[in-house]
Amino acid sequence: MTTNRLEAFSDGVLAIIITIMVLEMKIPEGSDLESLRPILPVFLTYLGSFVYLGIYWSNHHHLMHAVSKVNGKVLWANLNLLFWLSLFPFVTGWMGENNFKKIPVILYGTILLMAALSYRLLTQVAIKSEGSNSIIRKAIGKDRKGILSIFIYIAALAISFFQPAISVFLYLLVALIWFVPDSRIEKVI
Amino acid sequence: MTTNRLEAFSDGVLAIIITIMVLEMKIPEGSDLESLRPILPVFLTYLGSFVYLGIYWSNHHHLMHAVSKVNGKVLWANLNLLFWLSLFPFVTGWMGENNFKKIPVILYGTILLMAALSYRLLTQVAIKSEGSNSIIRKAIGKDRKGILSIFIYIAALAISFFQPAISVFLYLLVALIWFVPDSRIEKVI
Amino acid sequence: MTTNRLEAFSDGVLAIIITIMVLEMKIPEGSDLESLRPILPVFLTYLGSFVYLGIYWSNHHHLMHAVSKVNGKVLWANLNLLFWLSLFPFVTGWMGENNFKKIPVILYGTILLMAALSYRLLTQVAIKSEGSNSIIRKAIGKDRKGILSIFIYIAALAISFFQPAISVFLYLLVALIWFVPDSRIEKVI
Amino acid sequence: MTTNRLEAFSDGVLAIIITIMVLEMKIPEGSDLESLRPILPVFLTYLGSFVYLGIYWSNHHHLMHAVSKVNGKVLWANLNLLFWLSLFPFVTGWMGENNFKKIPVILYGTILLMAALSYRLLTQVAIKSEGSNSIIRKAIGKDRKGILSIFIYIAALAISFFQPAISVFLYLLVALIWFVPDSRIEKVI
Repeated sequence: MTTNRLEAFSDGVLAIIITIMVLEMKIPEGSDLESLRPILPVFLTYLGSFVYLGIYWSNHHHLMHAVSKVNGKVLWANLNLLFWLSLFPFVTGWMGENNFKKIPVILYGTILLMAALSYRLLTQVAIKSEGSNSIIRKAIGKDRKGILSIFIYIAALAISFFQPAISVFLYLLVALIWFVPDSRIEKVI
Repeated sequence: MTTNRLEAFSDGVLAIIITIMVLEMKIPEGSDLESLRPILPVFLTYLGSFVYLGIYWSNHHHLMHAVSKVNGKVLWANLNLLFWLSLFPFVTGWMGENNFKKIPVILYGTILLMAALSYRLLTQVAIKSEGSNSIIRKAIGKDRKGILSIFIYIAALAISFFQPAISVFLYLLVALIWFVPDSRIEKVI
Repeated sequence: MTTNRLEAFSDGVLAIIITIMVLEMKIPEGSDLESLRPILPVFLTYLGSFVYLGIYWSNHHHLMHAVSKVNGKVLWANLNLLFWLSLFPFVTGWMGENNFKKIPVILYGTILLMAALSYRLLTQVAIKSEGSNSIIRKAIGKDRKGILSIFIYIAALAISFFQPAISVFLYLLVALIWFVPDSRIEKVI
Repeated sequence: MTTNRLEAFSDGVLAIIITIMVLEMKIPEGSDLESLRPILPVFLTYLGSFVYLGIYWSNHHHLMHAVSKVNGKVLWANLNLLFWLSLFPFVTGWMGENNFKKIPVILYGTILLMAALSYRLLTQVAIKSEGSNSIIRKAIGKDRKGILSIFIYIAALAISFFQPAISVFLYLLVALIWFVPDSRIEKVI
């Protein structure tokens, strides 16, 4: 299997995830401004998740450009990442509809953490497959951003038991850190 | 990242948006002609949104053909456009189900305006990235159509507080202006 | 715009239509065999619509292979076809849920007719764009299958006011006629 | 039609199936941990179906790489496979929501069996089309895995009338057998 094929399939899945999330914004019964109000937190969560998935899509491409061959391990590490990302619509809808309450905030953070761990796993599997002198090995380097994100997620999860609002703020912080596309691979190439 | 990849992803998202909109046409309970009547405004709104998204898809391609390289700014200007377009199913369903009432008409117009502004932002970011002597710079020129659309949307929004029907008519007018694919880039090439 | 791009977008839309149709098969409340019974007509309609969309997808490709350039007219004739095909999930769900009653059967037939007319329009627009000596002109020839289908649909629509069951049979008959992929273009090439 | 086109369309359909399955995980009413409990079996079924579809996607590619030309029979054998796979979201949702009760477990197994038979049919049709000396003929060989899976599914179906839990275990066993991508074609190439 070529990297190209894996990328096209991942693109397809990500495009669908990012788009069906909007279906969780249920059309309100009424037609006045008031009936839009319960939609607002869902909209904000949707916006956040959209940015997150945009970041994953962008970084995923940068990663795949540095991968020359796809073996079974890379394939399943990639499917594993897509699985956790596919849960975004569910946790986005639940957190949005419940106005950032404790348990939905914890679940949202858990999925963010699992996606981050899966992305790191994918990079590690790809590095192992490409070899220690590969472009990807040099490009990812110590993966400071990746490790930092994971630590912030864990902190956010711990905090969410007491102050869900701070956790949501930390989720946004990680998004901000990653907002700039992963230029590490570009630099090495 | 190549323009090709950005285009394929945008294509995917647009294809999904254009298709899931039809899910907002809920299947009626009854099986007689009468039970189809509440679907009619949803159908008409769906038709209008379909044409709008067709226009965006067509023009987006013409634009991307004139873009030679994708940097982070172009990437996020593009995702920003896709975000606003992804709200079409929601506002289409709401306006259709509420028979073109005031607030849904205002919200629909707001999304149209945001999409138009995002498209203009994308062209500006692309022009800046490509340089002042680029094909895209000459092709877009003064962007009269783009600016005219934005003014009509703002007028339509102001009018919709009093006469939503006129606003809907203005939305259709803009669609008509854009119906012909953006031939400016073709001319310059 | 290249034919390739138009084909990829159409492929995307068709893949989504064919797949979201299955969402109209609502999961039953109970968990016994009895609760599956109301799903059966929806399942059968889904199967029929799946075959229809498979035929359109297959013939669409044969058609596009004979199209060398895409102008605005071809582009919109193609979007027009996709629009009518996008209504398949709605009419499939309605006819299935209402056990082939009169009005849903008429609506289903109307969409089949509109799709057939749109496909014929697309071939005519493409022939005009390609020229009277083009491969596509020779391949489509008198388009007997296309014209026959349209006549059968009109007959089925007339009959459906009295005997919807016969109409459903006629819809299946047209599917059967088209089941073999359109080999006319292959022959000429 | 080229193999490439068939693969891209199948990729699209599989990407959509794998992603819309998550829509069957309905967002719970409450916001506490308790309200997540009924989602757990749906989540587990979703996970299982995700792995299954990942396996089909991976093996489908290996198969398509060994197919040099697409005729009408290969095309429809492929659409037949996609049809049965498209029912995964329905049976996944039903089995998950009903906590692995008898009839849903039987239906899930039936779809697994139909998909396995359809995949075998596709390989047979492809072998016939490619010829007895083709790569695909040598690669598939006696198709022990395929035949074994079909036998396990039939056994699981028989057992599910008495012990649905054992059947679910057998479904997982088949997934495990196939988890490693079909390396037979790779070896021969």
